[in-house]
Amino acid sequence: MDFELNEDQRAFSDAASQFALERLSPMAAEWDEKQFFPIDILREAGELGFLSLYTPEPHGGLGLSRLDSSIIFEQLAKGCTSTTAFMTIHNMVTWMVASFATDEVKAEICPKLVTGEWLGSYCLTEPNAGSDAVSLKTSAKKQNGKYVLNGGKCFISGAGETDILVVMARTGESGAKGVSAFVVPAKAEGISYGRKEPKLGWNSQPTRTVSFDNVEIPESHLLGQEGEGFVFAMKGLDGGRINIATCSIGTAQQALDDATQYMQERKQFGQPLAQFQGLQFKLADMATELVAARQLVRYAASKLDKQDPEATAYCAMAKRFATDVGFKVCDQALQLYGGYGYIKEYPLERYFRDVRVHQILEGTNEIMRLIIARRLLSEGSYIV
Amino acid sequence: MDFELNEDQRAFSDAASQFALERLSPMAAEWDEKQFFPIDILREAGELGFLSLYTPEPHGGLGLSRLDSSIIFEQLAKGCTSTTAFMTIHNMVTWMVASFATDEVKAEICPKLVTGEWLGSYCLTEPNAGSDAVSLKTSAKKQNGKYVLNGGKCFISGAGETDILVVMARTGESGAKGVSAFVVPAKAEGISYGRKEPKLGWNSQPTRTVSFDNVEIPESHLLGQEGEGFVFAMKGLDGGRINIATCSIGTAQQALDDATQYMQERKQFGQPLAQFQGLQFKLADMATELVAARQLVRYAASKLDKQDPEATAYCAMAKRFATDVGFKVCDQALQLYGGYGYIKEYPLERYFRDVRVHQILEGTNEIMRLIIARRLLSEGSYIV
Amino acid sequence: MDFELNEDQRAFSDAASQFALERLSPMAAEWDEKQFFPIDILREAGELGFLSLYTPEPHGGLGLSRLDSSIIFEQLAKGCTSTTAFMTIHNMVTWMVASFATDEVKAEICPKLVTGEWLGSYCLTEPNAGSDAVSLKTSAKKQNGKYVLNGGKCFISGAGETDILVVMARTGESGAKGVSAFVVPAKAEGISYGRKEPKLGWNSQPTRTVSFDNVEIPESHLLGQEGEGFVFAMKGLDGGRINIATCSIGTAQQALDDATQYMQERKQFGQPLAQFQGLQFKLADMATELVAARQLVRYAASKLDKQDPEATAYCAMAKRFATDVGFKVCDQALQLYGGYGYIKEYPLERYFRDVRVHQILEGTNEIMRLIIARRLLSEGSYIV
Amino acid sequence: MDFELNEDQRAFSDAASQFALERLSPMAAEWDEKQFFPIDILREAGELGFLSLYTPEPHGGLGLSRLDSSIIFEQLAKGCTSTTAFMTIHNMVTWMVASFATDEVKAEICPKLVTGEWLGSYCLTEPNAGSDAVSLKTSAKKQNGKYVLNGGKCFISGAGETDILVVMARTGESGAKGVSAFVVPAKAEGISYGRKEPKLGWNSQPTRTVSFDNVEIPESHLLGQEGEGFVFAMKGLDGGRINIATCSIGTAQQALDDATQYMQERKQFGQPLAQFQGLQFKLADMATELVAARQLVRYAASKLDKQDPEATAYCAMAKRFATDVGFKVCDQALQLYGGYGYIKEYPLERYFRDVRVHQILEGTNEIMRLIIARRLLSEGSYIV
Repeated sequence: MDFELNEDQRAFSDAASQFALERLSPMAAEWDEKQFFPIDILREAGELGFLSLYTPEPHGGLGLSRLDSSIIFEQLAKGCTSTTAFMTIHNMVTWMVASFATDEVKAEICPKLVTGEWLGSYCLTEPNAGSDAVSLKTSAKKQNGKYVLNGGKCFISGAGETDILVVMARTGESGAKGVSAFVVPAKAEGISYGRKEPKLGWNSQPTRTVSFDNVEIPESHLLGQEGEGFVFAMKGLDGGRINIATCSIGTAQQALDDATQYMQERKQFGQPLAQFQGLQFKLADMATELVAARQLVRYAASKLDKQDPEATAYCAMAKRFATDVGFKVCDQALQLYGGYGYIKEYPLERYFRDVRVHQILEGTNEIMRLIIARRLLSEGSYIV
Repeated sequence: MDFELNEDQRAFSDAASQFALERLSPMAAEWDEKQFFPIDILREAGELGFLSLYTPEPHGGLGLSRLDSSIIFEQLAKGCTSTTAFMTIHNMVTWMVASFATDEVKAEICPKLVTGEWLGSYCLTEPNAGSDAVSLKTSAKKQNGKYVLNGGKCFISGAGETDILVVMARTGESGAKGVSAFVVPAKAEGISYGRKEPKLGWNSQPTRTVSFDNVEIPESHLLGQEGEGFVFAMKGLDGGRINIATCSIGTAQQALDDATQYMQERKQFGQPLAQFQGLQFKLADMATELVAARQLVRYAASKLDKQDPEATAYCAMAKRFATDVGFKVCDQALQLYGGYGYIKEYPLERYFRDVRVHQILEGTNEIMRLIIARRLLSEGSYIV
Repeated sequence: MDFELNEDQRAFSDAASQFALERLSPMAAEWDEKQFFPIDILREAGELGFLSLYTPEPHGGLGLSRLDSSIIFEQLAKGCTSTTAFMTIHNMVTWMVASFATDEVKAEICPKLVTGEWLGSYCLTEPNAGSDAVSLKTSAKKQNGKYVLNGGKCFISGAGETDILVVMARTGESGAKGVSAFVVPAKAEGISYGRKEPKLGWNSQPTRTVSFDNVEIPESHLLGQEGEGFVFAMKGLDGGRINIATCSIGTAQQALDDATQYMQERKQFGQPLAQFQGLQFKLADMATELVAARQLVRYAASKLDKQDPEATAYCAMAKRFATDVGFKVCDQALQLYGGYGYIKEYPLERYFRDVRVHQILEGTNEIMRLIIARRLLSEGSYIV
Repeated sequence: MDFELNEDQRAFSDAASQFALERLSPMAAEWDEKQFFPIDILREAGELGFLSLYTPEPHGGLGLSRLDSSIIFEQLAKGCTSTTAFMTIHNMVTWMVASFATDEVKAEICPKLVTGEWLGSYCLTEPNAGSDAVSLKTSAKKQNGKYVLNGGKCFISGAGETDILVVMARTGESGAKGVSAFVVPAKAEGISYGRKEPKLGWNSQPTRTVSFDNVEIPESHLLGQEGEGFVFAMKGLDGGRINIATCSIGTAQQALDDATQYMQERKQFGQPLAQFQGLQFKLADMATELVAARQLVRYAASKLDKQDPEATAYCAMAKRFATDVGFKVCDQALQLYGGYGYIKEYPLERYFRDVRVHQILEGTNEIMRLIIARRLLSEGSYIV
């Protein structure tokens, strides 16, 4: 066993940390306030490889592991939670295209996704099927050598401002086996977008509904085979959970860093907050749970890298634990700032808003509990 | 012992509930979004007596108890947390003026505060003394039969859009005994206001810093005697803690109502959420803690009404417990809504943002713990 | 509303407190260690009325309300959790007999139960139906003007050392309506008892299984009418939940008293524990939650006294909350004692063991959540 | 990074698991009930190397790392928490002697400690200095080429039934630098033992006070140099914290295994408990936190193995988190068993009692928080 970063990982981590510090952190508050989607900065990230971390090298990606990617995303999230979360989604889209698209589509699209010339959205969730992907209703019917899409998606990150959509749609029977995945140009005829959804946080990425009204796409834009969509989605979700858990960890670490420093500077009753034992206890618990959560995320990522049969259960555990801990740490850090935690002059309230959605996304934490319990009850409780 | 509302209390509660439903609830989201201070609606509330609930009748108030007031504020908070919270502050200002001002000042100001023609702000907190009122630095020096104020206050609700300030300032020695309270016209020469502070929530009330630069006020604007300011502030805080705890209870009840209904309407995996036992357990815990918190708030309010020597400890317990429970309930309700809890189309994220500050205001919940512990350790642990 | 004890309640509370201090507290550790059932002390309690607090006066009881009884039991529990818990069970048995037995049986048995000359056990739980009373299998068949009982009960407090059993048995169809209640002499032919069950706590009351092998009882020993047993059991449970919640409150108050004193006496690093803010925070939270729990228990008891249709939901909330808080407070008090909390020389570990079962008994706290959720989802979330 | 056991670790783990299953688990309840110290079984453990896991090979130990040892102790703790905890203490004693004793003493004692022919106790804690080792008062004065010990120790595991004591005593000035460590024969003249302390759990190991009344020991029995005792004690504590955290993890895993199985077997309302979603959620949380805790313990152990300067902070985090999680998991497992969790026929209540002390021992979890906070506040919050 070895729990330390290797040299490469340190180097990647440092590069990501620097990018976060220089390019994300100084702008994060403004992007949040103005609900601005920083496409230029995303392209800069693309130049550094941050948009295709685990996309295989032949397709232009860095070909890193999920674990490596988690180490990098964690540093980025310290700079801007919401922008980093979008990068993780784009990474997933890029990886899906690179992994499952036809050679023709790969050749056309991958180079642009990898650099961020094009950005991608991932279209799984539907209004009546939040965590219940099996029952999705958007249809893709084969007609005259094309697929014709009808239906709608909601809560789509980037939608309206991205170039490529990966869309899960039903090509066959009801249930999981009838679902297929497609690459769809974002401006294809028949696609329309809802208004930009005002939200609690994640404001540097637009969220919109997407409607498909007889949208025609070439057969070549099917990913893999018909009926494989649900399997791709599930694979995507395992990784997506690691990524979102990672964004919570990074943000919480930043909140903890800020709070630790604030405790040393802010005085009350003639002493720095750092002198108050009651607050020291809180700080210690924040750090302890955060370290535990980070280790669990890395462990789950390594399971995914090995294609361990337990990976799904571990990713669910990591997502549940790290997003809960992440929110708790940000909430406590806000509290340590007192009134200053509540105003937008300080970043604490933004961390608090941004990480809150991680407990909901990629399967709510209640769904995570079901996945974990199912695993325990079907195969026994000992999982190492 | 009797735990039920009497007829008058039911009538007040119903009137408040109706006002909340008709005048607050429909506008709350817009006020939040536009950071709009609804002065007209506050005046309507004044006409119904909601701006002077516990101000004595001779001075135009309803002369209700703190307990009655809590019952009323709870209903109002269901309509708009932030606006109701401002009303509670205005109530405190009105009560302070009615209780401690010279007859002349009372006669001039009370009638206007009671109707809401004038609105009031309460100026206690200073930048370097969040919860540490004893060390406040704003000074009031007697010169030529006037008081001259210098210094600054921060986090002042309503500041810049209200008409009257109650200001705590130092007239004497350092420590608690050197503090006095003043009524100050909000537009007096030498007063300037900071920019409207962007905040996480409480957006229907502006928050600004207030600076005093040689502000002259007549001697008659002293409340009570010199040196009594800290005692008034402490009395105000006990009531303020009940009020803010009440705002958490009301909001949390609304969040629970919403979530209960949502669970019956929203389907996942072919069943209403209400059928999922894991979610039922959550809902049960939310309700249980909320009911416990409401009872504790009412108990503390009744202690305050009786001028029970334990009132301060009870108010601290009620504030700590009810604001923590209130936030937890709103947070859990948001979670039950899933993605819909995170977007501004639904009110859950507003409840969540608005109640968060209650754990900080009127003495942070950490300060509450100190107050409670001090009481236990000085006089024994049995308090009923 | 009025939250204070009246004069009678204070007097009863003081009498109970004195009895706890003089007769229970000095022996509690020994009874625990030796697993000794203190029948003589129970009879002393009977002389003071503590065995028939809410039994109607015509049948020899004190005719107090459930709220009064809770106030008294709380004080007794400070002296010995386990013995007081047994008294609450005996009180329920006495009340059931006095309320539902034939005049003949009442006349024979009540006077003896009221004084404690006879002690009673309550036989509801069966091995395969912990919290699921509807499915109980012990049968009572009418034959030749008698009832013949067959079957078995488990976890029966006092069994083997009491004189009277109140037994729930099936006289008719499956389901709730087929259940009837009987008074059964504890030494009737055909009754046998299992070994004394070694348990974590509650050691001053023996727990045994009870087996019925063709036990004949006269028809007159039916309580109420055939088929009313489940209704009686449910009424009993509402009160039983208040009682057990009360035992948690009393014990937790004692633990808090002890811990508060200990913090003032015990020094570490040259200072009394009372000086450590981290520990002060804990103490404050223990007290706050305990006070909230006590109020909720009293509120629920008053609902029961009024036969409020919401009483069952309130009793479930009170039981869930107060037994969880009670355990948490005892656990934290033990922690504050450090190593001394873990050894039997100090009472903390006994409190901790004794109150733990309250989260399980009288319907587990998980069952409480179901009851509460069902109420919320069927009739709306606002319950005051 | 690599999070998986290697082949050797798997082999050790399997051997320990088998020993736990065959030699510990079947007897654990009886040892607990009879407060029996299973010396013979400890010697069997010694034969397998379990009494000298991280003692260097030249001195007869297995020379394993702390991480390896944690993997092994975890499996042993599944069989008997209390006996395994004693083994960890004996391991520490053995390691201290092997690391710091004079060659002469090593040669005499190590072979016997390694096999378990002799057992060892570790004497640090004093009545007035629970977690405050710096202020210990037991003295060791050099006289005529010997050390003469006076004073007393408390809460000493094994005391009265072991053969060798490692004793921390003051040879010089007050404070940490005046403390030295000694090897003391347990039956040396002048040593007396208190009565066997009745305790909540950890009953298979006796706990007694130890008094030193002019106990003479040869100079050669000093460990290291005079004044190094505190440093040894601190090193010992880091490892001791890993060990005790490990005992919590192992026990909690066993409790989780038991509860998972029980949920599949036990029916309520006509269904196995495993079907109830509310209980599934609990089970999922138990497993998730347990996995997180195990990873944190292993991470901390690896830091210790590398002599990482952060090891002390990591050991404190691991101890705090894993012992809290361990207790919580055992408590929840007990709850899932309902009434059966409360009786001694099932092992749940024993797990619950045994792990409770881990939150207190080796520095209370409050002390852990101080250590962690101090680290954060002195050197910054980012520790990976």
